[in-house]
Parts: sequence; C-alpha cells; structure tokens
Amino acid sequence: MKSMDRTLTGHLPAVTPGETVRLCGHVHRRRELAAVTFLVLRDRSGLAQVVIKPADGQEVPPEETPVEVVGIATASSQAPGGVEVTSPVVTALSAPARTAPVELWRPELAAGLPTLLDHAPVTWRHPAVRARWEIAAASLRGFRTTLDSAGFTEVHSPKIVESATESGANVFEIDYFGRPAYLAQSPQFYKQQLVGIFERVYEIGPVFRAEPHDTVRHLAEYVSLDVELGFVRDHRDVLSVLREVIAGMRAGIKTHAAGAVERLGLDLPVVPEEIPVIHFAEALKLVGAPADEPDLAPEHERALGAWAQQTHGSDFLAVEGYPMRKRPFYTHPWSRQARPPGDGSNSFDLLFRGLELVTGGQRLHRLTDYEEALRARGEEPPAYAPYLQAFAHGMPPHGGFALGLERWVARLVGATNIREVTLFPRDLHRLSP
Amino acid sequence: MKSMDRTLTGHLPAVTPGETVRLCGHVHRRRELAAVTFLVLRDRSGLAQVVIKPADGQEVPPEETPVEVVGIATASSQAPGGVEVTSPVVTALSAPARTAPVELWRPELAAGLPTLLDHAPVTWRHPAVRARWEIAAASLRGFRTTLDSAGFTEVHSPKIVESATESGANVFEIDYFGRPAYLAQSPQFYKQQLVGIFERVYEIGPVFRAEPHDTVRHLAEYVSLDVELGFVRDHRDVLSVLREVIAGMRAGIKTHAAGAVERLGLDLPVVPEEIPVIHFAEALKLVGAPADEPDLAPEHERALGAWAQQTHGSDFLAVEGYPMRKRPFYTHPWSRQARPPGDGSNSFDLLFRGLELVTGGQRLHRLTDYEEALRARGEEPPAYAPYLQAFAHGMPPHGGFALGLERWVARLVGATNIREVTLFPRDLHRLSP
Repeated sequence: MKSMDRTLTGHLPAVTPGETVRLCGHVHRRRELAAVTFLVLRDRSGLAQVVIKPADGQEVPPEETPVEVVGIATASSQAPGGVEVTSPVVTALSAPARTAPVELWRPELAAGLPTLLDHAPVTWRHPAVRARWEIAAASLRGFRTTLDSAGFTEVHSPKIVESATESGANVFEIDYFGRPAYLAQSPQFYKQQLVGIFERVYEIGPVFRAEPHDTVRHLAEYVSLDVELGFVRDHRDVLSVLREVIAGMRAGIKTHAAGAVERLGLDLPVVPEEIPVIHFAEALKLVGAPADEPDLAPEHERALGAWAQQTHGSDFLAVEGYPMRKRPFYTHPWSRQARPPGDGSNSFDLLFRGLELVTGGQRLHRLTDYEEALRARGEEPPAYAPYLQAFAHGMPPHGGFALGLERWVARLVGATNIREVTLFPRDLHRLSP
Repeated sequence: MKSMDRTLTGHLPAVTPGETVRLCGHVHRRRELAAVTFLVLRDRSGLAQVVIKPADGQEVPPEETPVEVVGIATASSQAPGGVEVTSPVVTALSAPARTAPVELWRPELAAGLPTLLDHAPVTWRHPAVRARWEIAAASLRGFRTTLDSAGFTEVHSPKIVESATESGANVFEIDYFGRPAYLAQSPQFYKQQLVGIFERVYEIGPVFRAEPHDTVRHLAEYVSLDVELGFVRDHRDVLSVLREVIAGMRAGIKTHAAGAVERLGLDLPVVPEEIPVIHFAEALKLVGAPADEPDLAPEHERALGAWAQQTHGSDFLAVEGYPMRKRPFYTHPWSRQARPPGDGSNSFDLLFRGLELVTGGQRLHRLTDYEEALRARGEEPPAYAPYLQAFAHGMPPHGGFALGLERWVARLVGATNIREVTLFPRDLHRLSP
C-alpha cells in the first residue's frame, strides 16, 4: 500500500469514482455520530471528507494527528468537490496529537492575538490563517517574475554591517568577534553599489529595526522587497517599474493563490495602467494642511487615498516631491520643470488604500554631491568611504524603492495588526516562538 | 534625443545597419589612436564598440564613467557581434570617473584577493567576475522554479532568535532591547514547524556562523537554500527532491546565464537521472578508513568523488547512514532494511566533485523521540518548548536539506576561495565593504 502514489485532496474531484486512493494529511475534524464517523482530512491543497462505518473497523486519531488514508473515491453531493473517501484504512503517522490551543477546525479562530502568536506553529495551520501567507508567497513570486523578465539580477547583500550609517538610530548591535557591528536596516547602500555592477538589481531579504515603540504597524524584523536601477531620467522611471511590480504581484496572487483569495474573500486591488501622481505641495493643499508641513500625517494619507479612489478610481496614489529635509542624504533634489515651492526632492511615497506602502525615488550619483550632502548634515565623508568608492569610480543616474512584504499583505487582507500576517513576529516584547 | 529608446549592447547585432541607436553604459575601454578613438561601452548585457573620428568632435571620458552614446549602427567585421556604432554623440552622465584600483578592461584581473575584496563595488564590474554572481542568481531562479512547480511554499523565518539552541557554539549575540538574543545559524527549527502548516517549504536567506577560524571554505554570513517536506517515507524521498533541485539549478544556469557560462568557460555538471547513493559504512571501506571513523575526512570525500566519477560517471554522490553521534539531535535513526554496523542515521551528505555541498536527511517527528534525544544529549526539553509544540500537536514524517549558495558556485567555477564568489564577504577579519 505504501508505494501507491499519493493523491492530494485538491485533486480528489478529478479521480474516477470507484478508484482506490491514498491521501496524507492531518485530521482536521473528527465527528463521531451514532452510525458513522466523519474524518475531514487537511493537506496543503485543501480538505477531503472520509466516511468511516463501524464495519470498517477503523479508529480515527484525535484532531491534528498526521494520518494516511487509503480508501475508495466515491461520488457524494455532500462532500467538498463532490467526492469523498469510503471504506478507508486509516493509519496514524505519529502518536495521537495533543488538543490544540484553539479549535483549528472552526471556520473562524476564536482566540486573541497573543494566543495566536504564542502558538504560531499550530495556529498558522488554520486554512484561513495559512491563506495570509499564501498571499505573501504568491506576491513574492509575482515580484520576481516581473523583474526577472525586465533584466534585473537578484542579489543578496550582507546583513551584518560595520556602521550604523543610514539613519544612526534604531539599530541592533552585535558582538562581532569582539568588536561592535550592526544589523542592516536596509540593503540601500549595497543595492546602489550593485547598480554599478548589474545596472538593475533586486533583493528580497530581512531588514532589522530596533523600533522602541510597540505599534500595530512596526516590527523589529521584516521582509523587505528592494529594487534599484541605473540609467533613469528621474524618479518617474522608477515609478514605472514600481507600477509593473505591483501589477505583477497582483497577477502572482491571482494565479498562484486563487484558493487563498477565495478563503479570505479578498477584493484584489485594481492597478491602473499608470499610477496617478500628485506633487507633495499639491497634496498638502488638497488635504488642507499648512504649506510648510514637512510630511504627510496618517489622516492626510487616508484623505489622499479616498481622493485617488474618487478621482482616479485607483487604489494607489504616488506622492512625489517630498521635502529634502525629511528624506535621507542620498536623495536627489527635484529636477523636473519649474521648481515647486519648498525644497522638493525626486522622491515619492506610494500610498495603497490610503496608507504608505513604498518609499522610493532617484538617488544622488555624483561623488561631490554626496560629499556636500553629508557635510550639510554634519557628517564626515571619510566615514562613508567604502560606500562612496562606487561613486568615485562612476555611477549612472539611478533610483529605486523598498516595499515591506508584511505591510502589503496586511493592507490586502485588511489586517489591523501587522503581526497577523507575520509568521513569527519580532517586536519589543516578542522574541519567540 | 533623450526620449529615444535605449538599445542594449547585446541587442545591437539585431539592429539594421544605418539606424540611429542610443546606448547607455560605462566606458569599459578608451583607446586613442592617431586617426581614431575606440570606446568600448559596457552595459548589463555585454560590450559594444564605438568608433570616434576627429570630425565627430567628441571627447571620451575616462574608463568607468557612465555615458550615453547616440550614433549609427554600422556593420563591421571587427566589432563584437558584427555591428559597431559610428558618428556618435557621447554624453557623460556623471563627472569623469577616478582611475579604478585595477584595470577592469583587461581580460584577466591582475590583483590579489585582498585588493579585489577591498574594492568589491568596483572589481565586481569586471565581466568575468560579474559572471560568477550571474551563475549564482540563475541558480536561485532554477531552485525556485523547481520547487514552485512541486507544490512548495516559499517562507521567511526570523533571523533574530531567542536561544542558541541548534549547536550552541559559533553564534553571534545581539543586544535585543537590552536582553541577549542571537542570529540564526539556520532556519532548521522554523522550516520544520512550517512543514506542519504548508507541508512543503523552502527558504532562501542569510545564515550566520561566528566561525572563529579563517579558512578558504567558511564565511560568517552566507546564503542558505533550505528545503523541508512532510509525508516522506525516509531520507531517500528527500534525496529525490534534492536531485530535482540540482537539475533545476543547472537548467537555470543554462537558460539564464549562458553568457556567464561562456565567459567563464564552464563545464556544467552532469546530473544523473538518479544520484548514486553509498552507505557511510561502505564509503569508509572504499577509501580504506577505519570502520569506527565517525565522519569523512576531506581526502576521503575527494576519493569518493573520483570513485563516483569513474564508476557512475557522476559529479554527484550521496553518502547516507552517517553515525547518529555526529548528526544533530533531531536526526532520524536508520530505518531501512537490516541495520548496518554502527549507529547509522537516515541522513546524508551530497558530495559534488568530491566536496560536501549539501547536508540533509529525515528528522524525528514524534514528541517523545525529541524528549528522549534531548535528554540523551544532556539537554532539558522544556528549554525547547516553543519548537517542540509543533511535535506535541502532530507532525508528519519529514525531512529536508540545506545547500550553501556560495559553496555551490565556488565548486562550479572552480574558485579556490569562497570569498571569490561572495559579493561582500564577512569573516573573522572582514566587515566591510
């Protein structure tokens, strides 16, 4: 029996009734009635119903126990997909599972977030919870497909870095063979240097922020999707690539996570052919904020999201021209048409349903501009020597963006806390499981 | 002129002679003769020759400066691909580049490893050096394609972990909001827990080893390709997946890095339909080592590699049944046929051309087996509670493997030092660039 090919529950509807099948999975639900026992089996592809009669002489182990079921595919209008398994031989593949901390077979998990997180290895087994990560994985696939076909090279840059250069604050310190080192807050410096080598690069990897605040939007470690490309005219070229990437992520979900979309009842966003763009100064006016505000407040972002929806029918809105003083030192100043009021930059944020999802823009590419920008911020260029050598030896105009995976998924599935879509979140208080 | 579409140098041979083209790239080589100046332009797709006559009135900036070239595609038997660019307008896109620390236009880089590593952002621009990473990126693509189409889910597990559990030694300690935490040495514990959720998972991400030794084979941070799958019979099922993955990585290189293969003159390995397997006890006999040796020495691995080549015509050899005492506590004991001499396990190493490339095997899946295995090693199961909860709540028989990206590429390109194939290596002495 062991050598019979396994049938996934998702393929059961395609099996000819009467055929013998072998299923493997966890006991999702065991329901013992007087004359019959129902076993709902869960595997990676879905659920299947197994019907056990007393004459079958089979014991069903407790819920969550992994089992093998060999039985006959039988048409049944009551079963999911119209096919159930009858006359089974049920073999437990482990000892009986302990009762789960929450009832995983219920359509909705009746537990608070701390319970869900403390028991993540078990609670993520729930089909509707698992669906959240299926959305994430399919998004990554769409991200890569888009960039692979546009001449980008995947890179992996070091996460242990020598200095806490990019922003200074909120870095984790490591004991690196007796000397201090830091966890990278972003691959920013590396992806820029790599543009000098590969022209177009992307990286998917962890980034680390020692966020001292406990909020529903921040994690100490998250997955960053980073893109950087050379030979751009300005940040609008970067924005065009971002549009393709978002459309590709949406397509990835539609193609590879259709079941998850259905289980979650998701409304996938519309990605317009061209994402509407508004200048920061215009955005301030639109939401009635003072013209000298250096940044958009969350309520402004929400208002702009509603405006984009009403005016452009778009779930996305790019705000360009943020003031230089609120952007990192490597930001390229505004270079399009007449100079708008303030100290605008060739940088943008992408709002998704009224929430910041992506930050990007054009970077400086001339060595002297870097030296000047660093000195203007009271920093000494020699401290940045390893980074600056790329610019000394010729770097093209370039730009890029970074997108947080968990933030994207949270916004898509409507999670109120980013921890709901993170497999094993890390924050001020949580370091386990 | 700016709005004309860019032509990649790699597409130049397909352009109809006489057409005007716009190229972008770095000045790879500038050669000024009496009557003519040659500019070899380098972009992500290759090289192109630009011919400048005195009448063109064009200055060519120094090597490595990024430029835009607008000129006429002209048939030429001397040019790479049979097409060169004449009557150009050359526009520098940055200030003139400083002289590079090594002459990047030479076919071979004449510099020692420390120079190459100190100037990595520049030296990786060399086409033959860049080719090494192109091999890496194409391998990743092949790895994912194989697993995506076999029902695996991509996951990302945390790199900051609570305890230095897996091996205890060689971990980096972090200051995590005032308490100690550690950098993950591998995603082992997480990928196992995730098998309970997704059945089949893979992760590509950084792992961290505080290696106190300076060797040509070890890094403090490297890219690990991790796979784990449930409902296996034993480690041989894992080995079958590994075979598909290696074949997929080879196919990825062939399809997506053909240029790199050519530049490096690579001989891609033959991946047999079935990878030959030898039991550890047999392997010891074959190389004439004492029967009570607990592991294979490097010279044994080399001898076995030569044997696999001679006997099976295979660049790969799997050695199964390693003694339990040399494997981690979660290793499943030997379960096939009659028990061989010693304390064999359902684990294997994959040798690639006589060098260990992959370690894998079947893991324990019953809670009581874990408790026993931990106690036998003098450890207390409660210290592993977050990990063990997956097993308490039902885990299928499962196994997996881990493959180091840099080690794979080093072996493929014949690098003698793993740092040669690592973009920005981290080791006992090196933390920058």
